[in-house]
Amino acid sequence: MKENIVIVGRKPTMNYVLACLTLFHQGFSEVTIRARGRAISKAVDVVNIVKEKFIPTAKVKSLELGNERLVTERGEVVNLSTIAITLAKE
Amino acid sequence: MKENIVIVGRKPTMNYVLACLTLFHQGFSEVTIRARGRAISKAVDVVNIVKEKFIPTAKVKSLELGNERLVTERGEVVNLSTIAITLAKE
Repeated sequence: MKENIVIVGRKPTMNYVLACLTLFHQGFSEVTIRARGRAISKAVDVVNIVKEKFIPTAKVKSLELGNERLVTERGEVVNLSTIAITLAKE
Repeated sequence: MKENIVIVGRKPTMNYVLACLTLFHQGFSEVTIRARGRAISKAVDVVNIVKEKFIPTAKVKSLELGNERLVTERGEVVNLSTIAITLAKE
């Protein structure tokens, strides 16, 4: 598994912004932000905040939508949308 | 303004899926799904449902992230993320 991935979940948006900045400062030139379900909106917020407020040279290098099928504890099948956004610093 | 745009908001997901299907059936070969803020996750759901359940030949032709600055009634400035996804039918 690659190390330059930030998975966006239920924590405050700024936690994930900080995680991205930390990875960039560690020397990665690319960071991938992943999320699924309702966290997708937050992932897009993270990308915008990193670009607008902290690293103006960062660009969206790739953007992928997907679909995941999960089986819950009760045996129900749930479809979840996913997103993967790769930010690259010049 | 183009007519083949579906703006995703607070209504149930299937309303927007139906809106997309209607546009495709009217003869448009492309439909653009737009959303901002929390509705972004729902927009991705709409795209996945159209592709998986109704129009398997539909492909994501383009995907754009953006940022909008709104001034609320109280004069507060709010930053909102936006997404625009264009689905194309073959």
